Amino acid sequence: MRRWELTITLDPTRELPLFLQLARAIADDIRRGRLKPGDALPGSRELAKCLGVNRNTVVASYGELAAEGLLRTRTGGGTFVDGSAPVPFAAHKPAAEAPTYTLTPLAYASPQVRAPPPGTLLVSSSIPDVRLFPTAVLARAFRRAIGQRGRSMLTYAGPCGHPRLRTELAAMLARTRGLPVSADNLMVTHSVEQGIDLVARMLLQPGDVVVVEAFGYPPAWSVLKLAGARLIPLPLDEDGLDIDALEALLTHQRVRAVFLTPHHQFPTTVVMSQARRMRLARLALKHGFAIIEDDYDHEFHYAGKPILPIASGAGGANVIYVGSLSNLLAPGISTGFVIAPAPVFERLASLRAACDARGDAAMECAIAELFEDGELLRHMRRMRRVYAARRDALATSLTRHLGSAVAFRIPDGGMALWARVDDNIDMTAWSRAGEHEGVQFFGAGCYDFYHREQPFLRLSFSYHDETELDEAAQRMARALTQSRNRRVGMTRNATIRNTHAVSSG
Amino acid sequence: MRRWELTITLDPTRELPLFLQLARAIADDIRRGRLKPGDALPGSRELAKCLGVNRNTVVASYGELAAEGLLRTRTGGGTFVDGSAPVPFAAHKPAAEAPTYTLTPLAYASPQVRAPPPGTLLVSSSIPDVRLFPTAVLARAFRRAIGQRGRSMLTYAGPCGHPRLRTELAAMLARTRGLPVSADNLMVTHSVEQGIDLVARMLLQPGDVVVVEAFGYPPAWSVLKLAGARLIPLPLDEDGLDIDALEALLTHQRVRAVFLTPHHQFPTTVVMSQARRMRLARLALKHGFAIIEDDYDHEFHYAGKPILPIASGAGGANVIYVGSLSNLLAPGISTGFVIAPAPVFERLASLRAACDARGDAAMECAIAELFEDGELLRHMRRMRRVYAARRDALATSLTRHLGSAVAFRIPDGGMALWARVDDNIDMTAWSRAGEHEGVQFFGAGCYDFYHREQPFLRLSFSYHDETELDEAAQRMARALTQSRNRRVGMTRNATIRNTHAVSSG
Repeated sequence: MRRWELTITLDPTRELPLFLQLARAIADDIRRGRLKPGDALPGSRELAKCLGVNRNTVVASYGELAAEGLLRTRTGGGTFVDGSAPVPFAAHKPAAEAPTYTLTPLAYASPQVRAPPPGTLLVSSSIPDVRLFPTAVLARAFRRAIGQRGRSMLTYAGPCGHPRLRTELAAMLARTRGLPVSADNLMVTHSVEQGIDLVARMLLQPGDVVVVEAFGYPPAWSVLKLAGARLIPLPLDEDGLDIDALEALLTHQRVRAVFLTPHHQFPTTVVMSQARRMRLARLALKHGFAIIEDDYDHEFHYAGKPILPIASGAGGANVIYVGSLSNLLAPGISTGFVIAPAPVFERLASLRAACDARGDAAMECAIAELFEDGELLRHMRRMRRVYAARRDALATSLTRHLGSAVAFRIPDGGMALWARVDDNIDMTAWSRAGEHEGVQFFGAGCYDFYHREQPFLRLSFSYHDETELDEAAQRMARALTQSRNRRVGMTRNATIRNTHAVSSG
Repeated sequence: MRRWELTITLDPTRELPLFLQLARAIADDIRRGRLKPGDALPGSRELAKCLGVNRNTVVASYGELAAEGLLRTRTGGGTFVDGSAPVPFAAHKPAAEAPTYTLTPLAYASPQVRAPPPGTLLVSSSIPDVRLFPTAVLARAFRRAIGQRGRSMLTYAGPCGHPRLRTELAAMLARTRGLPVSADNLMVTHSVEQGIDLVARMLLQPGDVVVVEAFGYPPAWSVLKLAGARLIPLPLDEDGLDIDALEALLTHQRVRAVFLTPHHQFPTTVVMSQARRMRLARLALKHGFAIIEDDYDHEFHYAGKPILPIASGAGGANVIYVGSLSNLLAPGISTGFVIAPAPVFERLASLRAACDARGDAAMECAIAELFEDGELLRHMRRMRRVYAARRDALATSLTRHLGSAVAFRIPDGGMALWARVDDNIDMTAWSRAGEHEGVQFFGAGCYDFYHREQPFLRLSFSYHDETELDEAAQRMARALTQSRNRRVGMTRNATIRNTHAVSSG
């Protein structure tokens, strides 16, 4: 019999139990071919002695491997490498073979997301600062949720989400946003994008026209296009979407839906005026189109009372309202929601039941616990204070370090500010120089429907604290100097015409 | 000033903090109209004294309500009901108004799921017994996952799932099922249905033909139809899908895909033979169609080694493999997965990035922890033992209490058995009588493509323990007696012709 020598160092201080460390080492040797089908393994007593571990550790290891089909114990004694085990793939390489059926062209090239070097400050990132997330509170809520509720907790939540979360979420949204909502017309989704996807699939036929804001959220556009929408961008100004332009369009173009972010518009942060909201709602009723209202960060409003959503007003029958908790909680807990009037909701629910019926009952109940205990509201209030302070700090830092290079108005809410950049600055060069200086920020081209670079910047204040934001502004200043030095002697680009810009400052 | 009398009983033993109990009571009074916009609230000191609580409790309550916009504190003193607050909807009734845009007919009528009375034994339900789920272990894993990993944990998981879970899942599936998979071609989904939905949207054009098993899983059919598939059911026998029938169809019909459950076929539990799997794979390569292999409970195999999936064999290039962990874990943790060769996977990933890019990073990492610690494997081995024992117990109970009314073969795996019912029994009447006796079981009509009732039953042994299963068999026997008594004097229905039945027993 061939002699096999196990080379393994068991480390009792590792979190992985010893018997699993041993099982992994043996499995690796089988995969590498050091142990071959039919090879005998040492007796458990012998191996235990040789490794200086308890014999039960070896027995448990062999048990794991037998359960995985890698080892086999013969009646009459002896443990062997199982020849009939699934072929252990040497490096687990995925098959690169092309199938013999035809594939349609890629719907969308996956965005080229280059991870910035470690230490880069991300003023590009409008996500919450999860360092402030009450993880211990959520962990406790989760433990209580799955521990106490027995069977019902871990079984299906129902296609529209767990009733507990639907009830809490509806109560909160009715109370704080005046929405005509109960658990009966609120659906919990896995993400705001899933919500938009369901709405688009329910509503749109290929070729249907959907009006969008000319500066907007490209992932939402992708979802709408996926359902076959033909998108028409309309301009924005400091009161939000240009309703005159919409009215002009409606004279000659049938419109199926308008998708917009009226509250802290993404990316410009402008708040759509009450008058425009009402005009839009009336137009929708008159011309028979749907309003898809994406209210992605309603809770972060710092000055006075927020204007209520279009869905809460008189034209509510034509509004489908989408949002998510991910800006309040964390992107990794991306629970979203869709609210629609009963006849529309019925169709959405039927679609959801067909294509993704199962909710995460466990997680949804944990979040419901956060509502019930008041933790969610507490966290919301805390983050509102934090972000308001950071907004002011970023404004101060920008003024101090960048001076007249940027001009901006302090936004009333949201997680970012929108700054106009001096016309003499080459946005692309500045942004590229920023990467070398360790700061990432995006110009308006990222949010423009036609990807045109324009002299605007979206700068987030939610992800970093005051000190980091000040450092980010300093790095931006250094990057600006560098990008100007490099441009000396170069031909000045023609100033890009700003076709649908929001005036700031 | 009108005098407002608060009627509230604060209960210090409730989990909800006192200040929130108070806030809710006041909010309720505002909603009910007992407190009107502009009404003054008592001073915090006065109310605290009157309620016998600490003044801080009242201050905190008012703070909550102010944050929600229901109360307002005037400079110079006094707390008032805020007149500009969102209209508090009396009963949170959803709007029933119809929109002015046209709605397409309902895609699918939501299935009429009538909840059975409490105490009903559900031998209809092929879901795991979550009473045996190690909730404490999962809660610990979740706490560790969100507590220790800092920022990265609670930020986006990436559209294909968190790398940790993708890596662990791929390693397990490569090891135990011989699949050519790595983290690079495995996508984590929210459910097995979402996986099928993505595959269908990526693959199908309206009108494309998809072959399915004549007995099958209706939710999967719904998803395929949603993408526009024209489904053609083909018969099954004890070796699985009838490949001769498929070959005959292919002579005159272009087929885009075959959707099937070759392992423990749903609902018949038959295992597709190795020979048929190989023929199917060869046909797919030759005729250029995709195989969508739904391997929903591979891990529950009790006799010998399971046959490896079609995706692990020679025709793998044309196979898209879907599955989920929900049968292993719990329906409320419905984490699924899709595996496809690189060129196909690229398209799936691009589609997913467009329509539902955010994963549940927190939960996915908690599940990855279960893999890393060996807990998942431990649970799998335990459940395999438990279900094997329950399978045998159900078989014994059926034989004892139902005798020759049912005939079945003990399945090699899965969570249910498939029984042939004596031709003289009226399935519909028996099943209805069962509901009165407190046992729910479904006949073959629920799984038949054309909803034809046929003399077969699917009886699950995963949801209940041995004692409950024996009680269920006794109730089934009583129900049978009752349904026979009721039929006395009635005309005997013509025996329903069984067109694509699996022979059993």
